[in-house]
Amino acid sequence: MTQKKHVYFFGGKQAEGKSEMRNLLGGKGANLAEMVNIGIPVPAGFTITTEVCTGYYENNQQWPEGLEEQIREAIGKVEADMGTKFGDPKNPLLFAVRSGARVSMPGMMDTVLNLGLNDTTIKGLIDNSNDERFAFDCYRRFLQMYGDVVMGVEHDLFEEIIQARKDIHGYDLDTELEAEDWKVVVEEFKALIEKETGEGFPTDPFEQLRGSINAVFESWFNPRARRYRELNNIPHDWGTAVNVQAMVFGNMGDHPETGKGSGSGVAFTRDPATGENVFYGEYLMNAQGEDVVAGIRTPLPISTLKEDMPEVYEQLDEIRHILEDHYREMQDVEFAIQQGRLHMLQTRSGKRTATAAIRIAKEMVEEGLIDKETAILNLDPLQLDHLLHPMIDPDADAKILGRALPASPGAAVGQVVFNAKDAEDWNARDEDVILVRTETSPDDIGGMDAAEGILTTRGGMTSHAAVVARGMGTPCVAGLESATIRYDEKTITFADGTVVKEGDWITLNGTTGEVLLDKVPLIEPQVTGDLATIEEWADDFRVLSIRTNADTPHDAEVALGFGAEGIGLCRTEHMFFAADRIGIVQQMILADSVEQRQSALDKLLPIQKGDFVGIFKAMEGLPVTVRLLDPPLHEFLPHTEEDMDRLAKAMGVKANAVKEKAESLREMNPMLGHRGCRLGITFPEIYDMQVQAIFEAACDLAKDGVKVIPEVMIPLIGTVNELAILKDNALKVAKEVIDEAGVELEYHIGTMIEIPRACLMAEDIAKYADFFSFGTNDLTQMGFGFSRDDAGKFLQAYLDQGILERDPFQSLDQEGIGQLVKVAVERGKSGNSDVELGVCGEHGGDPESIRFFHDVGLDYVSCSPFRVPIARLAAAQAQLRNPR
Amino acid sequence: MTQKKHVYFFGGKQAEGKSEMRNLLGGKGANLAEMVNIGIPVPAGFTITTEVCTGYYENNQQWPEGLEEQIREAIGKVEADMGTKFGDPKNPLLFAVRSGARVSMPGMMDTVLNLGLNDTTIKGLIDNSNDERFAFDCYRRFLQMYGDVVMGVEHDLFEEIIQARKDIHGYDLDTELEAEDWKVVVEEFKALIEKETGEGFPTDPFEQLRGSINAVFESWFNPRARRYRELNNIPHDWGTAVNVQAMVFGNMGDHPETGKGSGSGVAFTRDPATGENVFYGEYLMNAQGEDVVAGIRTPLPISTLKEDMPEVYEQLDEIRHILEDHYREMQDVEFAIQQGRLHMLQTRSGKRTATAAIRIAKEMVEEGLIDKETAILNLDPLQLDHLLHPMIDPDADAKILGRALPASPGAAVGQVVFNAKDAEDWNARDEDVILVRTETSPDDIGGMDAAEGILTTRGGMTSHAAVVARGMGTPCVAGLESATIRYDEKTITFADGTVVKEGDWITLNGTTGEVLLDKVPLIEPQVTGDLATIEEWADDFRVLSIRTNADTPHDAEVALGFGAEGIGLCRTEHMFFAADRIGIVQQMILADSVEQRQSALDKLLPIQKGDFVGIFKAMEGLPVTVRLLDPPLHEFLPHTEEDMDRLAKAMGVKANAVKEKAESLREMNPMLGHRGCRLGITFPEIYDMQVQAIFEAACDLAKDGVKVIPEVMIPLIGTVNELAILKDNALKVAKEVIDEAGVELEYHIGTMIEIPRACLMAEDIAKYADFFSFGTNDLTQMGFGFSRDDAGKFLQAYLDQGILERDPFQSLDQEGIGQLVKVAVERGKSGNSDVELGVCGEHGGDPESIRFFHDVGLDYVSCSPFRVPIARLAAAQAQLRNPR
Repeated sequence: MTQKKHVYFFGGKQAEGKSEMRNLLGGKGANLAEMVNIGIPVPAGFTITTEVCTGYYENNQQWPEGLEEQIREAIGKVEADMGTKFGDPKNPLLFAVRSGARVSMPGMMDTVLNLGLNDTTIKGLIDNSNDERFAFDCYRRFLQMYGDVVMGVEHDLFEEIIQARKDIHGYDLDTELEAEDWKVVVEEFKALIEKETGEGFPTDPFEQLRGSINAVFESWFNPRARRYRELNNIPHDWGTAVNVQAMVFGNMGDHPETGKGSGSGVAFTRDPATGENVFYGEYLMNAQGEDVVAGIRTPLPISTLKEDMPEVYEQLDEIRHILEDHYREMQDVEFAIQQGRLHMLQTRSGKRTATAAIRIAKEMVEEGLIDKETAILNLDPLQLDHLLHPMIDPDADAKILGRALPASPGAAVGQVVFNAKDAEDWNARDEDVILVRTETSPDDIGGMDAAEGILTTRGGMTSHAAVVARGMGTPCVAGLESATIRYDEKTITFADGTVVKEGDWITLNGTTGEVLLDKVPLIEPQVTGDLATIEEWADDFRVLSIRTNADTPHDAEVALGFGAEGIGLCRTEHMFFAADRIGIVQQMILADSVEQRQSALDKLLPIQKGDFVGIFKAMEGLPVTVRLLDPPLHEFLPHTEEDMDRLAKAMGVKANAVKEKAESLREMNPMLGHRGCRLGITFPEIYDMQVQAIFEAACDLAKDGVKVIPEVMIPLIGTVNELAILKDNALKVAKEVIDEAGVELEYHIGTMIEIPRACLMAEDIAKYADFFSFGTNDLTQMGFGFSRDDAGKFLQAYLDQGILERDPFQSLDQEGIGQLVKVAVERGKSGNSDVELGVCGEHGGDPESIRFFHDVGLDYVSCSPFRVPIARLAAAQAQLRNPR
Repeated sequence: MTQKKHVYFFGGKQAEGKSEMRNLLGGKGANLAEMVNIGIPVPAGFTITTEVCTGYYENNQQWPEGLEEQIREAIGKVEADMGTKFGDPKNPLLFAVRSGARVSMPGMMDTVLNLGLNDTTIKGLIDNSNDERFAFDCYRRFLQMYGDVVMGVEHDLFEEIIQARKDIHGYDLDTELEAEDWKVVVEEFKALIEKETGEGFPTDPFEQLRGSINAVFESWFNPRARRYRELNNIPHDWGTAVNVQAMVFGNMGDHPETGKGSGSGVAFTRDPATGENVFYGEYLMNAQGEDVVAGIRTPLPISTLKEDMPEVYEQLDEIRHILEDHYREMQDVEFAIQQGRLHMLQTRSGKRTATAAIRIAKEMVEEGLIDKETAILNLDPLQLDHLLHPMIDPDADAKILGRALPASPGAAVGQVVFNAKDAEDWNARDEDVILVRTETSPDDIGGMDAAEGILTTRGGMTSHAAVVARGMGTPCVAGLESATIRYDEKTITFADGTVVKEGDWITLNGTTGEVLLDKVPLIEPQVTGDLATIEEWADDFRVLSIRTNADTPHDAEVALGFGAEGIGLCRTEHMFFAADRIGIVQQMILADSVEQRQSALDKLLPIQKGDFVGIFKAMEGLPVTVRLLDPPLHEFLPHTEEDMDRLAKAMGVKANAVKEKAESLREMNPMLGHRGCRLGITFPEIYDMQVQAIFEAACDLAKDGVKVIPEVMIPLIGTVNELAILKDNALKVAKEVIDEAGVELEYHIGTMIEIPRACLMAEDIAKYADFFSFGTNDLTQMGFGFSRDDAGKFLQAYLDQGILERDPFQSLDQEGIGQLVKVAVERGKSGNSDVELGVCGEHGGDPESIRFFHDVGLDYVSCSPFRVPIARLAAAQAQLRNPR
């Protein structure tokens, strides 16, 4: 029996892995291998597979058989390639140990650098670098990382030791410390580790390696990594690979003019903010990569490197083109320059703003780099979301407090808070907040997600705040160094002296980098330019129609502008709440007899008709699905005693009459109560009025030559008999109105499918339905037994504990609730091959769910107006992935 | 193409139908045909099929093609057989037109007698009967029925005319009126009909027949018939057949001594109250059948007929045996004697008390008439219900107010009301009522159903009240003629002068016929005698195990006495509500920290352990399934502000703390909220405490040599991950306790299947479950989207309109929710072939549902203790019908 392969070597001219092996090797590992294979200079190393990580958790944190041997063998290959030796006192091989999941999780997991150093090998490093200060700096960095990450010693304790040393000399910066200082620090670090953990720091390089590999595995389940995965819908059981790679040193001297300078940098093959086809990046001389990303020193733009080290720049620019030609995707690379020699440490698909993503996709097609299909498939539809939200009105009169890096575009209006915890707490109270920090760290991830926007006073375009904000689509202005934050006072003071306190309102323009005082008016977005082109391409591919959920002519018009092809859900209850009619609705509910109720309904009829005229007109020529009254009647009655008294007085009835009615309508579980078609059965006159209003509106417009296709949707059907009765009633009213008007009118009568039983009985139900519109929100509530209003009390715990991979109200639970949808589609078609199939409700705007709806054969999805462009793109992707 | 056969003739020696054609011909029609076929004297006639009725409703109340011709042809055959002619002035054939559904619905639909009379044919009737008074009495009866039933003239208006005539002569009784009086009455009736309807009464006999047939069809959907079907689970779409049969006259003279006497009667082949194998019945001389049943004249016992007309009695007794031998079932027959000649008008399976049903089944087996299988299959398990409820304590010291007919056995304690409406209203307020009436009519059916017991002062054992009460299993004492009711004062005065007013308490003993003052103590029933024998036979047949739902040692013991084979559902929340612990439970809920909560749980642990010790001991050697805490925590907090203040004071916390906690726990839809295993996930310490209590109790008993098989049931599982986590937690606790005790213990950990999604995911879930217990109550709530607490607002309308055939909470919705159960069984077994399958909850005691559970392959059902004998019988029937 051959042993399972746990370790994949890369280096020299040929790697054992390749980019297609991303699931096994993680993104970083697969791409390191791929770079080797296409001839790009990469320090040698090896990748331990994600399967080892998964197995590690399944097998009580034990290494699988053969792993150690395979690692030792791979080390041998690295030694051969690098011409150094692991643990060798003369010419020591040092390793960087990094995580690498299938998808990038920047900063979420642990890294150990300079591994292999001890009191013996340090000598070799001193000799080879001829730089004692550099060597001891490396050593202390290693001790610090290893002590923190592997041995659990608190980070701050190390920093205190360094600070003490600086204080002795009166230094401000770490760089001022000399070799002798670092030597002392190293000894003090070793003592600290011994004191805190009760055991010495391991000097055997292989033990160091073992500890670091395990630490990376463990960091897969640290709280911030878990939380990141939940926010980004990454399954917990994917695991991470571990990349063990020969160290190169960007901090081995600072002499670019000699051609032997060192440095580290990160770069994008195109501008990640705008998408423009220019080389875009930042670097620091004499620094390790972490220094660039951490935002502690503000790095230089990549264009400066052209002057500092022209040959290196040229090589880098060439690699940029090789990578884009190879991957046909914008790349985000990391590199190190060690004494004048360029080493690529990572390439991966680059995170970018929605604007950039759209422009890159379009331009790569124009450049002939990719075809339209690839352009569509490369886009993340959800990312469009923040392009489709309001932007700052350029004509607004606002006070500019400062201007810094436009780190993540879009407009954000909110109240200032100064730490992540407050951001989460305020957000939980439905407050809009702007998180203001000197810089952010992975521990702030929850607060960053809760914030409308992020403002930092330090760090560049590749700082943690900038990268994460772009990933989240949250507007961010970074590096506003002219402002000063005082955490103790909870204030930020801008250059002009304006002091903004916690709770004050500011507005961020992440597109321009401006920070504005107070709430600034916003304007609505439009689908134009590159986005319009992409959406047109998407329309050519997709087979799903995209409709919108709209209750007003205004919403209908917005959605039309976004490309909606009809209304899939027009909720009539919203119309009942308007000030000019709620009184009549209450009169109807409080009626003691059918006659009294009818008299109230007679008053409502012309008002409802007016509502429909407006919406039908806006949607001329397109289908409009109107859902008949759905919520329980008690929702329309006042809730407080005071309001009830007022209503009673207004209606001239006894105060008790209102209370008694409200009491008699009260429900234990309104979600499962007297609502939807159950109202239609018990109060047929309500539905009759609505149907009459729909058809009178449609007929009036038809007479004026406006084409209208009304669709009457009966909600909450659970049995075929309900639909048979209610459809019959509706048909009767419709025919009467149409006959009287003497017009021709195409119309449909159908039902929501939102009760589990309805899915099971869909064959019978379809015989009475022109269409099914899946109400997957209620279907999820009933199928899961989750009340959406109440599930907040446990849903977060369910996500935290990995019980659910994602919130089933945001993205359809395909394996469970999806079965009900599937069965209803199959049976519905078998009962009525002409039945039209759609979905309304929030899942209709979720790309993952849209893919599912495409796959099971629906005809359309309907979503909120701002989601229409997302749905168009997602529907095209669904068809490209699974043509039908 | 041959025409569809709508009409089946019977008469002479051979009928076109037979008893197997019950669905097509209705029960009455099929049995009339069958009687003809086995040589029993039956007046000729014909049956119009139930399909005609169904078609009549589907086809706008039109007759199908060919019906009229087939009727005319059948009339010809009847004429030939009877030697009379329809509409003939000399020798007229008269018809009785009666409904006849698949199952008997006594008194629910309409009947027309003496049809064919008009001013011409009356002459023939006078000549042939030689009795002008009789003939005109027949004519006026026909006019009265036809006017009421077919033409819609109010019944009372006819009675007023008769009363006026009696007043003229100063008569008390109808029988005192002479031929001349009836002649006048006939003319007045004709004028009344003309005046009320604007059209004359039809003189053409065929038109009379057409109207009467349609009236019978129409009466299928009259409100009382609908209501009766709903109470008895009879589908509305079965329709009724119509039986048109030559009239014979039980009121053609009153001279038994001549051997030419006439009379009518009804009889049972065995005693319907006790089941004793004696001929049992009642008759009236010179009366039509309706007079016997109506309870207006009190009839004579059948034994008297032996003296009055011995030959007829002998023939009748012979027929009794022929029928029992033929049908192998106790029969309920109607007969008429016309001038000394016996005619059988109906035979059908006789309604009987549960006691009688059991005794008859057992004795028929002993007599060799049927085998045990048939005995079991003939019984209605639901009927046992009232045998299994408390009976009057024979030692109780109670004042007897009177003694009359023991019309329907059992004990009833309630407050007196005097009309059906009040009975329904009081019952809706959860009052126990006794309905007291002079006599009852089909219009009282709702009130009879709402009453605990029924007392009438007129009518015999076959009166409406008696027959219906026996059918419902409601205790009834009938014909207490010594008491006087005054409806205006709402009082009943008994023979000893005691006056009982509305709202006063009385007790009925329907088994002895006694009426007792006040509430009398009751004792619990036992399974003994004939019932024990039948249950033993059932046990030999059934494959389903029967467990019980019991939360206390007392319930467990009762259930054991009824034959329970374990506990399928022990609810722990009931234990939390007891006075000695609710305080601690509230302390636990109000805890601010895990530590505080743990301290409360530590106090609960020994109490819960005590609960389990008691129950386990009672169920020695049998499995006991304990469900971990299920309801949301807010159920344990007080609801009024006052109670909250009191609790706060008792606990020494601020009043607001309690209110805030209650507010924070409040849910919109608690049914779909934070309950069941969701509590176990968020508060693992609660479940841990419960599991510890279960296993400590079991281990303690095991040490004492008491065998205990605990089964831990985790409620509300919707995802496999919930169960994986909670099972793991439970196993950990269980193993610790068992290891510490050092005993061997068989135990199981499983889950309720009550969420639709759980059914779909059952394959995965079963991998972690030793057993599935279906919670079909919640499954119905979620699958249907019906909150049981709220569905009352529309469920009655759903039943009334035929949207649902029956209440899905009483009997499982097999076609819809049943699919979920089926799928869960299949997938559960495929995931874990050893998974044990059961059902707990009310459907586990419903015979129809039990049949379904047997068919889909469950291992056991669990029901309330008093339902255990019913379930045993139903399970045996299920196996006999579908062996597995």
